[in-house]
Amino acid sequence: MKVMETELVKNLEPYAPGEQPQEAGFTKLNTNENPYPPAPEVVLAIQTLDANDMRKYPDPVCGKLRRILSEKHNVTPDWIFAGNGSDEVLRLIFQAYLAPGDVLGITDPTYSLYPVLARMFGAKVKIFDLGPEGELPRNPEISSCKIFALANPNPPYGVFYPLSEVEKLACSSPSTLFIIDEAYVDFARGDSLDIIHRCENALISRSFSKSFSLAGMRVGYTVGPSPLIRNLYKIKDSYNVNSASQAAACAALHAAEYYKEISRKIIEDRIFVTRELRKLGFKAYDSEGNFVFAESGDGKTLYEKLKAKKILVRYFDLPRLKKGVRITIGTHEEMLSLVETLRNLI
Amino acid sequence: MKVMETELVKNLEPYAPGEQPQEAGFTKLNTNENPYPPAPEVVLAIQTLDANDMRKYPDPVCGKLRRILSEKHNVTPDWIFAGNGSDEVLRLIFQAYLAPGDVLGITDPTYSLYPVLARMFGAKVKIFDLGPEGELPRNPEISSCKIFALANPNPPYGVFYPLSEVEKLACSSPSTLFIIDEAYVDFARGDSLDIIHRCENALISRSFSKSFSLAGMRVGYTVGPSPLIRNLYKIKDSYNVNSASQAAACAALHAAEYYKEISRKIIEDRIFVTRELRKLGFKAYDSEGNFVFAESGDGKTLYEKLKAKKILVRYFDLPRLKKGVRITIGTHEEMLSLVETLRNLI
Repeated sequence: MKVMETELVKNLEPYAPGEQPQEAGFTKLNTNENPYPPAPEVVLAIQTLDANDMRKYPDPVCGKLRRILSEKHNVTPDWIFAGNGSDEVLRLIFQAYLAPGDVLGITDPTYSLYPVLARMFGAKVKIFDLGPEGELPRNPEISSCKIFALANPNPPYGVFYPLSEVEKLACSSPSTLFIIDEAYVDFARGDSLDIIHRCENALISRSFSKSFSLAGMRVGYTVGPSPLIRNLYKIKDSYNVNSASQAAACAALHAAEYYKEISRKIIEDRIFVTRELRKLGFKAYDSEGNFVFAESGDGKTLYEKLKAKKILVRYFDLPRLKKGVRITIGTHEEMLSLVETLRNLI
Repeated sequence: MKVMETELVKNLEPYAPGEQPQEAGFTKLNTNENPYPPAPEVVLAIQTLDANDMRKYPDPVCGKLRRILSEKHNVTPDWIFAGNGSDEVLRLIFQAYLAPGDVLGITDPTYSLYPVLARMFGAKVKIFDLGPEGELPRNPEISSCKIFALANPNPPYGVFYPLSEVEKLACSSPSTLFIIDEAYVDFARGDSLDIIHRCENALISRSFSKSFSLAGMRVGYTVGPSPLIRNLYKIKDSYNVNSASQAAACAALHAAEYYKEISRKIIEDRIFVTRELRKLGFKAYDSEGNFVFAESGDGKTLYEKLKAKKILVRYFDLPRLKKGVRITIGTHEEMLSLVETLRNLI
């Protein structure tokens, strides 16, 4: 007799890592990384990390980071939980609140991690189709959902939902944990922070990977009512965020001007690329993330043609998404080169 | 109606972080940290981390680190899984293999995390009492256990079990996942790496926190048959080990001479302290970790008296452990000062 994994795990597929070209020379517009480096003081915080901070255990509850975040968001530190990337934070929320048979509600399309996490904990997935321009369905009934996960802006289209609409939906079912995933919010026109003070079932998820240019350091967090947050501390790994990452995130929060400037550049180039894509005949969704979804009818061919020209974009082999590709906003030079390449391809 | 956590999570207690004194001047002998800094090339690897490695996502499967480890351990890379500290690795093993109602077997005493993880996944805990000197019970029947977790050396006593005894136990129940937790193995006289080639139900867990002096960077791994390892990839967070930590661990594996030397010093001081403790009338267990468990009859009083003298040791309020304290091996100077302090206390 052999050692058997649990039934839940048996039915999962192993994780397929994203495309990381080994050859040099690729322009990577496929993983929504920030094209600009982290702020100089962030790089310095890592590069001057004391050997004692490597040797000793990190702060298990990210005390300093949460203090700074609590001031930024005007809440008490017990309203904040920090994790090893927002992927860990989301997983812990799902683990704490989804039992086998529970229902996760998501939009289609959205961030592909949500259904993966639901299956990991034996939950079912209920899908709410977005409208033709990526808009939310009218009056969706979410009370059968234990969790509803809404990204805002919502990838891969990047549509930003009006905050009043988000709040109405979040408050429509007080027994549904309503996650507002704001990984891309710094590229958008607003945020939902006010909502968590009015809906005691809502949590906001944030990331340092996108606007803070720290994907390699893995820091994310969630903000919301402490009775919801409290359960995450029960199930987290003892020391989930390492010392270098805590130092980097703290330094990043003190470099607001730098980050405002690089976000401004990314937004400017997103507007530029969207316009140029439309001129070239693509359907380009109104995005408020650091990416644009462009439809030409055959996303796979477009992806392959661009790859042959050493530009990597993201193709999703899913019914709703196969018509197009998701393009990360890079530097202005990269966007000029992308537009020029597309012009020659079509 | 409110959002309710799962039944499993409701019954868990929030994590209680270890004692981290805010005042300066404490000698910290309470968390088994290494008193020596990481190797100079490890510090350098972090301090020269490229801004691009902070900006971009890390290698999701720790390819380079696993290649180096696979050469060190003479296995293929698919026999290795790396995680955010061995705590994460252990949690993933428990998550992949323990369903509600399953049984985890552990010794008493042992690493206190194991039963915490078992409860998190709804498993029951079966306890096997160690003998008076911390020795394994004779012919324990473990076939009712889905997982048996054996630390070797086994904290907090630090007893090292003969490898033939470990192998016999591991192979006694092929349907039991047998975890050999070797977090402290570099301070011991041998290791169980051969066993995983003969018992296809065994996994070895290792840490960079102790002998590699990298507790702050969070890297651990497990080695064993790929059919067991494979399931961990299904449930891990997408990017679980960050770029700085991967760089640090790779550099550490290239600094074998440095680490051999600091482990030698720690072992020497462990022998010294054990002998001195016995001269002072303590019962001190034969430890092969970087710590010694010293019994005086009343561990709590001893802990408090030492704390008043600015020396922090670890007291466990558990039936089997309340007679003593666990003392981490620090520098030779710290050990001299500890012995001197104890001499004046008793």
